[in-house]
Amino acid sequence: MENSFLAYKQHFDKDKFAGLAGIELVEASPGHAVAKMEVTPLQLNSVGTLHGGAMFTLADFVFAVASNTHGKIAMAIHTEISFFKAVRSGTITAVAMEISLHEKLGTYLVEITDESGTLVAHFKGTAYRRNEMINFEGMTNKT
Amino acid sequence: MENSFLAYKQHFDKDKFAGLAGIELVEASPGHAVAKMEVTPLQLNSVGTLHGGAMFTLADFVFAVASNTHGKIAMAIHTEISFFKAVRSGTITAVAMEISLHEKLGTYLVEITDESGTLVAHFKGTAYRRNEMINFEGMTNKT
Amino acid sequence: MENSFLAYKQHFDKDKFAGLAGIELVEASPGHAVAKMEVTPLQLNSVGTLHGGAMFTLADFVFAVASNTHGKIAMAIHTEISFFKAVRSGTITAVAMEISLHEKLGTYLVEITDESGTLVAHFKGTAYRRNEMINFEGMTNKT
Amino acid sequence: MENSFLAYKQHFDKDKFAGLAGIELVEASPGHAVAKMEVTPLQLNSVGTLHGGAMFTLADFVFAVASNTHGKIAMAIHTEISFFKAVRSGTITAVAMEISLHEKLGTYLVEITDESGTLVAHFKGTAYRRNEMINFEGMTNKT
Repeated sequence: MENSFLAYKQHFDKDKFAGLAGIELVEASPGHAVAKMEVTPLQLNSVGTLHGGAMFTLADFVFAVASNTHGKIAMAIHTEISFFKAVRSGTITAVAMEISLHEKLGTYLVEITDESGTLVAHFKGTAYRRNEMINFEGMTNKT
Repeated sequence: MENSFLAYKQHFDKDKFAGLAGIELVEASPGHAVAKMEVTPLQLNSVGTLHGGAMFTLADFVFAVASNTHGKIAMAIHTEISFFKAVRSGTITAVAMEISLHEKLGTYLVEITDESGTLVAHFKGTAYRRNEMINFEGMTNKT
Repeated sequence: MENSFLAYKQHFDKDKFAGLAGIELVEASPGHAVAKMEVTPLQLNSVGTLHGGAMFTLADFVFAVASNTHGKIAMAIHTEISFFKAVRSGTITAVAMEISLHEKLGTYLVEITDESGTLVAHFKGTAYRRNEMINFEGMTNKT
Repeated sequence: MENSFLAYKQHFDKDKFAGLAGIELVEASPGHAVAKMEVTPLQLNSVGTLHGGAMFTLADFVFAVASNTHGKIAMAIHTEISFFKAVRSGTITAVAMEISLHEKLGTYLVEITDESGTLVAHFKGTAYRRNEMINFEGMTNKT
């Protein structure tokens, strides 16, 4: 089942912590999602570089979107992230890609790149897919 | 080299994203750190539970504190986190423990528990230790 | 449901690759397992130290035993291992501990120590628990 | 520095545990490696499917080859693997790809596919690069 980008966006706009972290959803389609984060002083750590927690939150967000696009509620059970390069400014982009999908489990890779296209972090997440559906349609109808 | 809790706290108070996430440092000593996060509407995700990014940020924060307590600048290179239980309210606590320390690398486990003492998430992080020192003393002297 | 150590041992004696790797099961009880591996030239890598694959196989084996002790068939879905110290000789020991158990998922930590008690590797594994049971009893009855 | 496939192969032929596991190196060039494993009864686990330890050993082997191709000795510090599908027979293939390379650290993804091309496991490994070199040339000269 595919929904419109607007339907996905409306659902994930309810993600308060992603909003706090300055994350903006850019694309969403079955098994796929893209989001951006502009680096501001609010997301820095004690040594003045982008916080690992902010990068993780961006990666986790596109993982959440991509894994929920099929309609079944998908809950993160395990995630891991490698950090390659400190980021100080500009906008970073995260792209989630589905590499495995079973009835109960789905696995996703996320690449985070900086403005120059350099890979700054690489994430993998596994989600457990519950037998409950998200009502994306209902959400669309409200608009 | 051991520093006072105040010296560690002053350094990590500069962590803006941890502050945004509502994290409070409670303990810090060589190889060890404890922090808390009170769950508020700001840290929730689109289904109304504590965001994985918020839990990760708490775990990453105590990992950063514990791995930097020895004075050498320690940068996260790889982290992973398992999520066991959704959290909706109350205060969660993260405790970091050093399990390996070499000249260039350190590895830490973090347990996150809810108010009932249930393990809600488990994190492991590996840091690369640079040949630069954090001037915790200088920071203390400024007060 | 608890079974005798003999019942568990008979089931896991069918693990051919663990046998090839020189692994011996020492303890097994619900959510817990201990196994040993004596380092011989067969388990070395191209630089003459114990192969990461051999250490992983030992950790994965105690994870498999511990996660299957409850009777439901448990399949590894994600595992990760940190290596802290090269091992050249002697016997290494792996101890698996259950840190989370739900109807469908279980998570386990494994510590691998050398003869001096030094932690040489640390493993975490997550298993998916199917709705099929292992007939440990039947196996015991066959003896 | 690039070496011939033969030079790489001679070095990694000394990997006894990879040999025991039935692994054959197929390709090696800077930051890249491919190897195969034919599934035989020796690599099965207690439920008759390919052992996670055998799949890991194959992935770890191509990671080791790819991370050592640049000449500096590279030691695994952290690895993780997701398992998507049980394998019972046939030949599996692992391909390692470098996603990050710094003076001291390198990170690699490994995809393991079965004969039908289905992704059966996905691995990520991080290596610490020491200041010692492998003498691939000397090895070539001996032939």
